[in-house]
Amino acid sequence: MSHPHPDLKPPGPLAPGALRIVPLGGLGEVGRNMAVLEFEGRLLVIDCGVLFPEDHQPGVDLILPDFGYLEDRMDQVEAIVLTHGHEDHIGAVPYLLRLRKDIPLIGSKLSLAFVAAKLKEHRIKPVLREVSEGQRRTFGVFDLEFVAVNHSIPDALAVAVRTPAGMVLHTGDFKMDQLPLDSRITDLRAFARLGEEGVDLFMTDSTNAEVPGFTTSERDIGPVLDSVFAQAEGRIVVASFSSHVHRVQQVLDAADAHGRRVALVGRSMVRNMTIASELGYLNVPDGVLIDVKKIDDLPEDRMVLMCTGSQGEPMAALSRIANRDHRVSVGPGDTVILASSLIPGNENAVFRIINGLIRLGAKVVHQANARVHVSGHASAGELLYCYNIVRPKNVMPVHGEVRHLVANGALAVKTGVPPERVVLAEDGVVVDLVDGKAKIAGAVPCGYIYVDGSSVGGVTEAELKDRRILGEEGFISIFVVVDSSSGEVVAGPELHVRGVAEGEDKLAAIVPEITKALTEAAAGGNADTHQLQQVVRRVVGRFASSKLKRRPMIIPVVVES
Amino acid sequence: MSHPHPDLKPPGPLAPGALRIVPLGGLGEVGRNMAVLEFEGRLLVIDCGVLFPEDHQPGVDLILPDFGYLEDRMDQVEAIVLTHGHEDHIGAVPYLLRLRKDIPLIGSKLSLAFVAAKLKEHRIKPVLREVSEGQRRTFGVFDLEFVAVNHSIPDALAVAVRTPAGMVLHTGDFKMDQLPLDSRITDLRAFARLGEEGVDLFMTDSTNAEVPGFTTSERDIGPVLDSVFAQAEGRIVVASFSSHVHRVQQVLDAADAHGRRVALVGRSMVRNMTIASELGYLNVPDGVLIDVKKIDDLPEDRMVLMCTGSQGEPMAALSRIANRDHRVSVGPGDTVILASSLIPGNENAVFRIINGLIRLGAKVVHQANARVHVSGHASAGELLYCYNIVRPKNVMPVHGEVRHLVANGALAVKTGVPPERVVLAEDGVVVDLVDGKAKIAGAVPCGYIYVDGSSVGGVTEAELKDRRILGEEGFISIFVVVDSSSGEVVAGPELHVRGVAEGEDKLAAIVPEITKALTEAAAGGNADTHQLQQVVRRVVGRFASSKLKRRPMIIPVVVES
Repeated sequence: MSHPHPDLKPPGPLAPGALRIVPLGGLGEVGRNMAVLEFEGRLLVIDCGVLFPEDHQPGVDLILPDFGYLEDRMDQVEAIVLTHGHEDHIGAVPYLLRLRKDIPLIGSKLSLAFVAAKLKEHRIKPVLREVSEGQRRTFGVFDLEFVAVNHSIPDALAVAVRTPAGMVLHTGDFKMDQLPLDSRITDLRAFARLGEEGVDLFMTDSTNAEVPGFTTSERDIGPVLDSVFAQAEGRIVVASFSSHVHRVQQVLDAADAHGRRVALVGRSMVRNMTIASELGYLNVPDGVLIDVKKIDDLPEDRMVLMCTGSQGEPMAALSRIANRDHRVSVGPGDTVILASSLIPGNENAVFRIINGLIRLGAKVVHQANARVHVSGHASAGELLYCYNIVRPKNVMPVHGEVRHLVANGALAVKTGVPPERVVLAEDGVVVDLVDGKAKIAGAVPCGYIYVDGSSVGGVTEAELKDRRILGEEGFISIFVVVDSSSGEVVAGPELHVRGVAEGEDKLAAIVPEITKALTEAAAGGNADTHQLQQVVRRVVGRFASSKLKRRPMIIPVVVES
Repeated sequence: MSHPHPDLKPPGPLAPGALRIVPLGGLGEVGRNMAVLEFEGRLLVIDCGVLFPEDHQPGVDLILPDFGYLEDRMDQVEAIVLTHGHEDHIGAVPYLLRLRKDIPLIGSKLSLAFVAAKLKEHRIKPVLREVSEGQRRTFGVFDLEFVAVNHSIPDALAVAVRTPAGMVLHTGDFKMDQLPLDSRITDLRAFARLGEEGVDLFMTDSTNAEVPGFTTSERDIGPVLDSVFAQAEGRIVVASFSSHVHRVQQVLDAADAHGRRVALVGRSMVRNMTIASELGYLNVPDGVLIDVKKIDDLPEDRMVLMCTGSQGEPMAALSRIANRDHRVSVGPGDTVILASSLIPGNENAVFRIINGLIRLGAKVVHQANARVHVSGHASAGELLYCYNIVRPKNVMPVHGEVRHLVANGALAVKTGVPPERVVLAEDGVVVDLVDGKAKIAGAVPCGYIYVDGSSVGGVTEAELKDRRILGEEGFISIFVVVDSSSGEVVAGPELHVRGVAEGEDKLAAIVPEITKALTEAAAGGNADTHQLQQVVRRVVGRFASSKLKRRPMIIPVVVES
C-alpha cells in the first residue's frame, strides 16, 4: 500500500484523459467528508460535511473542509453529489454555496429535504436535482449512476462516476444490514454489475474497518426496546441522534405496542422527524405523537420522551433532565434509554449524565448494558464481501482516521487487490487515475477551517493556542500610566487577574515591585513604553513562575499620559 | 438500598460505642480514595489518594480529598492505612501530612516504599509502620488485621478493622486472579474466616461492578506479548502504567525470551521499577535491562523501549515518538504495544497517538485489537463470590462513580443482603454503625480541593468558570485614561484581544465608538470610573455579541489621570 509522503509537493497538471481525485476532508478524521473529482477541467464534488471540534480546538463551533483548492475554480464545479443527509456529509454545503449559490445539489429525496431545511436557516435557496437508486444521469462530463445503500439514515446512495478515464465507485457511508427496517438493502447486485463492467477506483467507507465481523441489524434493537418498555413502570426517556429515522421508528412502534404516547423534544429532532414523516420515511402510528406541552396530561406510565442529547451536550434535554433543570423530572421507577453510540471524546460528559440520572433513582439503559444501539457502518466482514463482489482495480479508503484507512486498505489487500493499487491518502493528497492506475500525484494545502461565531476561517492556530493557555492558566493584565516626559508612574499599576488561583491576593504584593522596577527603568532614561512593558512582563512573569508555579498569560500595558 | 438524600444535614454526635465512617473521596468518582473511621474520638484514615481532573476542570494539576472534616482533629488521627501504592490511594498523603507530619503510615513493604519515594520529593520524612498479610496489629482503639489481595500492583492489602462496635472489612482495590504472576492470591480463606466471625460492614471495590463475568488473568497477556514479540521485525515500544510491576515483568520476560534488551523510559517508570526490583517484586532477567542512552548501540530487532504515556500524556515518551520528537524513531517494521486500559476522557489523545504511529508506518497493538491489557478490579462475577463468602451484615460500596456504587450494591442484594442493609453513600455522607446496623447519619461538607501550581485549595469554581470562558471565548481588554476633572479621554482606548477570531481587525472599528460613548457619558457629568467602565463594557459586549456572535470576557479598565 502506498503511504502518503509527508513532504508531498503540489501536483503537476493533470494528464489529458486522466481523472483527478482531491479529498478536502474526511481522510484522516471522522467528519467533514468531501472529495473533488476533476476531469477535463470540470469538477464534481462528492459530499460537503462538517467536523465537530475536539478538546484541543476550544470554542470552535464547527470545522469545514478546506475550500481553498476550489476558491478560484468555483465556475468549473458541475454539481455537488450528497450521498446522504448526515451533518458530516451535508453540513458544510451552506458555506460552499456562499462562494457560488447556483451549484446544483444532487441527492435522494430525503437527503435534499434535509439539506434544504439547513439552507433555509442560512437563507439560501438552492438548485436541487433529485435522483434515486437505479438512475443514471449526466452532469457535464460526469456520467453518474446511483446505487441504493443502507446506513443509519434512510435514502442513502452510493455513486458510480463514469468518465473516459474510468469508473469510480464511491460508497458514501454504508453498511449491509440484510433485513433493514425499510427493506432497502445495499444493492450488491448493482455493485456486482458495476464490478463486472470494471470499477477502476473503489472509494469505500473505512469507519468500521477495524471492527471484526458483521454489524448487527437495526432490527435486533426492536426486541430489546420492547423488553425495556414492558418492564418500565414510570416515565420513559429515550435519547438518540436526531436524524436516525429508523431508531425513532422503533421507539414509536414500541410505544404504540405498550400504550404509550411519544413527545419529540429538541429542535433538530422535531424538524427532522417532521420531514421524514411528511416524505413517508417515518410511519407514525395513529395518535402516538403528542406535543411535549401536553405531556403532563398523561400518566407517567403512558409517556415517552424522545429527545436529543445522547452525546452529553450540556444544553440538550437529556443533560437538563439529569441536572433537574427540565420540565420533565425523572426519579425512581423511571427509565432512560441512550439508544446511541458513545462518540470518542464524549465519555466523561455522557457518564456524568448517566450518573446524574442514576443518582435521581432512574434506571439507565445504554449500549454498555443492553443492545440499544448498532453502528451505521460496514464492519470488516462486510467490507470483505464488498471487495470480493466489486473486485476493484484500485482502492482508495475514505472516511476515517488514519488507523481506519490503513485497516480498510489491508482488507482490500487480503481479497487480492495488489498492495500497490491501494492508495492511502489523507486530506489534500491528490490522486490521479491515469491509464487505469491510481497514483498519488502530490498534495494541495488542506487545513482546518474553523467556524467560530460569525467568523469562518478567522480562527488561526495562534488563537487556539492563546485559548488553550487562557483556559489552562488564566491571565494577568497590568495597566500603568507613565508621564510622557519624566517616565514617572502617574496611575496604576492596576492589576486584573482572571483564572489564576488566589491571583488577586497573592499578586497585591508585587504592585510596589512593579512600580520600583518601572521607576528604575525610567531613571535609566530613554525607556519607551514597549521597553517598560517588557519590564512589567519580566517582574510579573518571574513572580508567577516562582511563587504561583504557573505560567498565566501576561498582558502588560504601559500608556503615556 | 438507601440512596443518599441530597439535602442531608450535618450528623449529630456519634452514639457511645458506635463506629462512624466518613468517606472524604472516591465515592462518586474514580480516584482520591479516602475514608475516615471514628471510634471513641479516635480516627483511622484508610487511603489518601488523588483524582486526576477532567476537561471541565482546566489547568488543575490534581484533586485532593477534602481534608476540611479533619483539619481541627488532626491530633485525633491514630494512623493512615495505605491499602496499596497507586496514586489514587497514596497521592494525597504529602498534603495530609502537611497538617501533621508524624501520623504513622501503615502499609505493606512495597506500598510504603512507593509513598516514601513520593514523600522524599516533598521533603517529608514519614513515620512508617510496615505490615504484611496475616498480621494483626493494634493502633489505639483500632485492632487491624491485614489480608492479602491481588491487584494491578503487587503487595496490596485489605484491612479488617475491629472495634467494640463491630468489624469492618475494607477490600481496598482488588481482583481475584486465581493464577497471578506472584502466586499471591486474594486470600478468600481469610475472607471466609472473617465472615464466620462476622463482618458487620463490608466496604468493597465497585470499579468493575458493572462488568459482567470475571476479570481475565494477568498471565493470559503473556502469550499475546510473546506472539507479538515473535512477529516483530524492528523496534518494539511498549507503553503501560509506571506502577504495573507485573505488566513490566511480562515485557522483560518476553524480551528475554526473544533476545531483546529493554530500556526503561520515563521518570516514574525508572523510579518505580528500581524500587520494585530492589525489594524483589520485579525479577529482572540477567542483563536484560539497558540504559536508554545506550539503546542506539543495539540493532533495531534487539531493542525494547518500556515507557509511560499510554494515556496520551503529551509530554511522555510515547506521544513524543508519535510526533517524531524523541531520540527513538519508529517507522515501517516497528511495533508499538499499548499494554494498558484506555481511561475514559483520554480517547482522543490516545487515538491521536495511535494514528500518528500508524502514519509513520508502525504496527500498533492495543486493547482494541489484542489482549494486551486486563483490568485490576474484580468484575461482577467475582464480587458475587466475595459476598457469598463474606456474608456481610451491612454493605457500603466504595471506589467508583454513582453508577458503579449502585451496581455493586445491587450485586450484594442479589446474594441476599437485605436492601436496607446496603448503604449507598457518596463523598461526605456520614455512615454510623450502631448496634450492628449501618445507617446514613448525615453529611459533612466535602468539596473538590484543587492543587494548582503552588496553590492547594485556592482554585474556586469561580476561577474554573473564568478559565472555561477564557478557553472557549478569549477576552477583550480595553484600557482608557480619562482626565480626572473633565472626564475627557486623554489616552487610549487601547484594546488587547486574545483568543477572539479576527479580534484585532474587527475590533479596530469600535475604538471611535468607545471614545464617543465615554465622551457622552462624561458630558452627562458625575460619571465615576466604575460607571465609565460599564459604558465601555456595554459598547464592546454589544459589538462582540452582534458582530462576532461570541461572548468573550470583557475587561474594561478606566483610570483617571
